[in-house]
Amino acid sequence: MLHVQSLDQAKFLLLNIIKKGTFLSERVHVSRCGGRVLAEDVVSSEDLPVFDRSAVDGFAVVSSDTFGASAAQPSLLFSKGEVKMGERAAVSLSAGECAVVWTGGELPHGADAMVMLEAAQSLPGGLIAVETSAAPGGHVVFRGDDVRAGDVLLPAGKRLSARDIGLLAALGVTGVLVAAQPRVGILSTGDELIDCKKTPIGGQIRDVNGAMLLSACKEAGADAQFCGIVPDEEAALLAAMREAGKDCDLLLVSGGSSAGAKDAVSRCLGKLGSVLFHGLALKPGKPTLAGQTEDTLVIGLPGHPAAAYLVFHALVRPLLAAMAGAALTQRTAQATLTQVAPSNHGREELLPVRLREGYAEPVALKSGLILPLTRADGYIRIPRDTEGLEKGAQVEVILF
Amino acid sequence: MLHVQSLDQAKFLLLNIIKKGTFLSERVHVSRCGGRVLAEDVVSSEDLPVFDRSAVDGFAVVSSDTFGASAAQPSLLFSKGEVKMGERAAVSLSAGECAVVWTGGELPHGADAMVMLEAAQSLPGGLIAVETSAAPGGHVVFRGDDVRAGDVLLPAGKRLSARDIGLLAALGVTGVLVAAQPRVGILSTGDELIDCKKTPIGGQIRDVNGAMLLSACKEAGADAQFCGIVPDEEAALLAAMREAGKDCDLLLVSGGSSAGAKDAVSRCLGKLGSVLFHGLALKPGKPTLAGQTEDTLVIGLPGHPAAAYLVFHALVRPLLAAMAGAALTQRTAQATLTQVAPSNHGREELLPVRLREGYAEPVALKSGLILPLTRADGYIRIPRDTEGLEKGAQVEVILF
Repeated sequence: MLHVQSLDQAKFLLLNIIKKGTFLSERVHVSRCGGRVLAEDVVSSEDLPVFDRSAVDGFAVVSSDTFGASAAQPSLLFSKGEVKMGERAAVSLSAGECAVVWTGGELPHGADAMVMLEAAQSLPGGLIAVETSAAPGGHVVFRGDDVRAGDVLLPAGKRLSARDIGLLAALGVTGVLVAAQPRVGILSTGDELIDCKKTPIGGQIRDVNGAMLLSACKEAGADAQFCGIVPDEEAALLAAMREAGKDCDLLLVSGGSSAGAKDAVSRCLGKLGSVLFHGLALKPGKPTLAGQTEDTLVIGLPGHPAAAYLVFHALVRPLLAAMAGAALTQRTAQATLTQVAPSNHGREELLPVRLREGYAEPVALKSGLILPLTRADGYIRIPRDTEGLEKGAQVEVILF
Repeated sequence: MLHVQSLDQAKFLLLNIIKKGTFLSERVHVSRCGGRVLAEDVVSSEDLPVFDRSAVDGFAVVSSDTFGASAAQPSLLFSKGEVKMGERAAVSLSAGECAVVWTGGELPHGADAMVMLEAAQSLPGGLIAVETSAAPGGHVVFRGDDVRAGDVLLPAGKRLSARDIGLLAALGVTGVLVAAQPRVGILSTGDELIDCKKTPIGGQIRDVNGAMLLSACKEAGADAQFCGIVPDEEAALLAAMREAGKDCDLLLVSGGSSAGAKDAVSRCLGKLGSVLFHGLALKPGKPTLAGQTEDTLVIGLPGHPAAAYLVFHALVRPLLAAMAGAALTQRTAQATLTQVAPSNHGREELLPVRLREGYAEPVALKSGLILPLTRADGYIRIPRDTEGLEKGAQVEVILF
């Protein structure tokens, strides 16, 4: 009845659908595009720096004038004055001449090196005693040393760091074409669920997944909206999914996605569009399902918060990255397992662990609990049909 | 003339000043507090779950009724109907009885285990054939299994993840007391600097540090404002620093902070308050200075973008974390150095590196360049007065 997929099969299937889609981009001011994803290559239109400049406060010199100079035997040069910051070097130097240039100032024509202020003495009559031998090019940054016009500096798909933003500012790129943030709608379904601001009565419980998935989507760079709690009832769910999916690239529905009698998400999805798979060979995460309507990808996540979060991390985050045209940024750590992880059969397992000084300690995820998940730092993927992992095994931890 | 400090001395000095300060907090809706820092311990006011609940879709049973049951020899139980989701269990069970309970539903009084739907058959006359032996407590989450009233669940100073937000929602904590974001003002100083939207003429260059530091502060969770470009001239800088510092916990001024003739930041700081140190025994980063006015900590950063960024990362980020009462989150990676790092004398060195499959490749940071910094993934701290690092040395990389 369920079309069960492995996690990797499911990811491959969904990423292929996303690749065929067309997503939007927008031009954003450089000061606001931190963490956004570049939608086009950034190609330099100019050399940086645009002029030969000094890297120190000191004297621009013709280096050959200073060869062999020392404190005991300084080279005496005639100062032609100062290059003012932010202005063209008005002077040019010939042999025997020098000029004051501050850090970042332009090197005068004819000069090929800088001597730091502290390696020179001012003498009467505009004479400067240079007490060191300047290497050609010493303390100078030449035109184009940093960037050459026409170079591809940042590739499309790069998530912009503060350093990238510095580079864009240096190039004068103030309007940056970035991928639109994927638009995500989030629904929680279950007759027992109430808004977290209410006090449960009877068998009610507060909705956890709505707030948690909203925050997780935002962490992943999405423009996410929580669209409410829906009873586990087909007509209501169908209306809610239709409405919530209207302006979304991705709709997440948690709860009601197993094959139990009351589970309506799959049936609704069949009516709104098509079911791509129903069920993952994954522990936890078995009741995960996916489908699509005309414009929207729909993922049904397990109702248990820990399972919902793990499937979000392992399956949905890569989809959100792909929707922005970005590679997924996934940090990992190598660690030693502190206890045996029992064998599993037929299902890959995502085992949450706590990291302590190079050791990975499994965190027991009893069904439906939320506290243990907040104590975990990441998880280990244990392939299906393995004999389990020994205590002391070297494992790769996928970090949250 | 300069009161030179090591990086660690400077950090210690400034963190001590911050500890004496008092910073604000605010109550924020749980759906908006991802990435914010808790300003108080979160203590549970209730047990979670608040009732014994089923972890599966199935039949609540008295486990002893099922001992020894199998497909060949099922236990026959009488069904007392269904516990509706979100409602109290209206029935209670005695020996020989069972009731349908869905995942998350309340266990009826008298029941102590669940049998999954697929391990039972419905027979005529309300009889249920249970084909498995249920362990006491099997597939049940008991009241308080997750959280006990009075437990400290999240400590003050914790930066809230999506998983923490799930826990807060489960507890009904909708208004979360979080530390106010540190308010940071950013000034760029230098006669040669122009706004990055302009085209340089003469010896002008576009301001890089303003946009870069603004983005870096936001990445670090601060509420940061760029306050403009100021000429390297004392009266203008004094007025700008006074104005920009008014509503800030921290004022960053980049450029103009070395001891050169034109460097006015230190003199202005002396007039507005006091200089704490001038100069770091750090490469790059020597011209860094710090001081304070009545309400504001002031850090003068080097003008060179790469130096400004490295000092921001190594010194300013820890201060921003401390201002929110949080521990600094610092990721590191172990790697093998691909080439020798020459010895340094008298100054600690921050060596930017690129990481490639476990190898750390030093990135040359010629003075004032910005592109190499965007290619680095982090940096190595090389202690002062060492003989340098050999090719093949195992190093710890502090990740950006």
